[in-house]
Amino acid sequence: MNISINNSKENHSDEKTKSSSELRQDIVSGDWVVIATGRAKRPDEFGNVQRSQDDKGIENCLFEDPVASGQEKDVLIYHRADGDWTLRVFPNKYPALSPGKSIKKISDGPYLSMPGVGYHEIVVTRDHYKQLAIMDVMEIAEVFDAYQDRYLEHMSKKNVNYIAVFHNHGKESGASIPHPHSQLMAVPVVAPYIKLELDGAAKYHKSNKECVFCTIVEHESQEGKRVVFENDQFIAFCPFASRAAFEVHVMPKKHSPYFERITDEQKIKLAEVFGKALGAVYKALNDPPYNFYIHSAPCDGSDYPHYHWHIEILPHTSTWAGFELDTGIEISTIQPEVAAEYLRSQL
Amino acid sequence: MNISINNSKENHSDEKTKSSSELRQDIVSGDWVVIATGRAKRPDEFGNVQRSQDDKGIENCLFEDPVASGQEKDVLIYHRADGDWTLRVFPNKYPALSPGKSIKKISDGPYLSMPGVGYHEIVVTRDHYKQLAIMDVMEIAEVFDAYQDRYLEHMSKKNVNYIAVFHNHGKESGASIPHPHSQLMAVPVVAPYIKLELDGAAKYHKSNKECVFCTIVEHESQEGKRVVFENDQFIAFCPFASRAAFEVHVMPKKHSPYFERITDEQKIKLAEVFGKALGAVYKALNDPPYNFYIHSAPCDGSDYPHYHWHIEILPHTSTWAGFELDTGIEISTIQPEVAAEYLRSQL
Repeated sequence: MNISINNSKENHSDEKTKSSSELRQDIVSGDWVVIATGRAKRPDEFGNVQRSQDDKGIENCLFEDPVASGQEKDVLIYHRADGDWTLRVFPNKYPALSPGKSIKKISDGPYLSMPGVGYHEIVVTRDHYKQLAIMDVMEIAEVFDAYQDRYLEHMSKKNVNYIAVFHNHGKESGASIPHPHSQLMAVPVVAPYIKLELDGAAKYHKSNKECVFCTIVEHESQEGKRVVFENDQFIAFCPFASRAAFEVHVMPKKHSPYFERITDEQKIKLAEVFGKALGAVYKALNDPPYNFYIHSAPCDGSDYPHYHWHIEILPHTSTWAGFELDTGIEISTIQPEVAAEYLRSQL
Repeated sequence: MNISINNSKENHSDEKTKSSSELRQDIVSGDWVVIATGRAKRPDEFGNVQRSQDDKGIENCLFEDPVASGQEKDVLIYHRADGDWTLRVFPNKYPALSPGKSIKKISDGPYLSMPGVGYHEIVVTRDHYKQLAIMDVMEIAEVFDAYQDRYLEHMSKKNVNYIAVFHNHGKESGASIPHPHSQLMAVPVVAPYIKLELDGAAKYHKSNKECVFCTIVEHESQEGKRVVFENDQFIAFCPFASRAAFEVHVMPKKHSPYFERITDEQKIKLAEVFGKALGAVYKALNDPPYNFYIHSAPCDGSDYPHYHWHIEILPHTSTWAGFELDTGIEISTIQPEVAAEYLRSQL
């Protein structure tokens, strides 16, 4: 028990400086985060955020042989030369949204609703024990290839206005099945977080005649201190206003609003940078739970020339509690510069 | 293991209706949530979201005798007639924000930051094992009285533009110390979530010449199906576009933007409705982790006549995973009408 005698004189001055926290503004959304280094741990102390080891093994895995386990039939399957599959995509057996013809809005008193119309698919890779963080470049590139394939399939459909591509790893990050899998949800509304970024990007472009994400890429690459890894086409860095410890963003250096237009060559370049970054997170935090997702422009028929697609990696290093849920201001307990340096040391 | 033979013909029709999910729009923010009842559990099946029993007991509790445990000196203390304390407030020993004179913005390349200036206090009630969900009306009213006292103390200070009052219960909801305690954080920026509500309320008022929250209160009270409990001054209900299973909002029936103007009589009326609602959540979900927080108008010197203060109770019934983090669209697996009915049955 940590008992010490309280010295009220020293502790009650308005000038005390023991907490050296700072507020940082997200340049895209305009929102603020708190970097509370007064509560800081050393970078290597975040590694106890281990994920639950609740894997019941291959013999009980629903995704090891999806069709035999009662999953829906594949809509996409990739094979190795010897015939075994390497990746498959099938509709989610318990979809949050389902195909349907109408998204007509329904009034209910002062409120509005609409049918839960959309598509919800699962992208499964072959090896039960090989998460993306430890895959090689070509294996990761194949995953992005599958994302693109399904994205292109759904984006032209009626009633699809945004496509979310995301990955949950570990129970604490919302993965209910341990076998590595991503999800794709094609939804009839533009996602609020994307709208915030679109609005912020449009506002920045109006003031500065530049893409805000291109500004970020150029500044981060030049300054270097928040960079985790980069090649000639992509950069991975800890954002200036990180919302969580060890958050990493991966961005194309060349301006493009649309993930789905990525070329085969770019997929390999992306896989290299993404794989290095996720691998560094995996090592630095000792196999943590994490989420990552792609932010790309809506597919609602409009053009979004000032948007810039990217990937956000969010290791589960903290719980968003009352303050974050109340305010939308996140508290991170490590400076992104320190996190990036530690991630680089893992490469 | 749940193996069944896949019938691809039946499963691949675009017309399948096994998932009866719907999208509902939040009338204030304009954001959408998914109510995915295709994945539904029965109301009584949510009760396994129990919180970790990691309490090391009174003898190891830092808040049982805060001063002796090295906490900061009290800034407010309430006593019983016999002299023992019932509630005390003291500055957080590890504050996320600390007092300071300047909130001058600092440029860092294209980014902005400012010193982490603010106030961060802890509100502790006496009984280690008596959480707010099982307190009586007068005990809860005393907690709201302390919130108001500290709110009034901080709101006129320079550099304080929003005051967050929130409560984390259970490790999964971010409480690091099991002894019941709330927190107050006075911050120099208007919280993004409040700004969203202010903007939504202003927009609704412009179109409808009415407060959007007054519209909600009137509709919910009249319709009744989402109401958990109400008296003549306050109403507790599951919101139409609930973001999580068993979410409950508590609102004053009489329009008021400002929590801090609550009267002593209203505090008792609020404590009755809030206590019934939180008590129902406690029973329905079998002592779950939860957060609650007050949303009140900013104290930045402006008037917000179209805002309407309220409390949001968020039981920890799910993890916000990749889809929610990606999009800002939350998925709930129970209809708010069903959740409210079940909560009413616990009263």
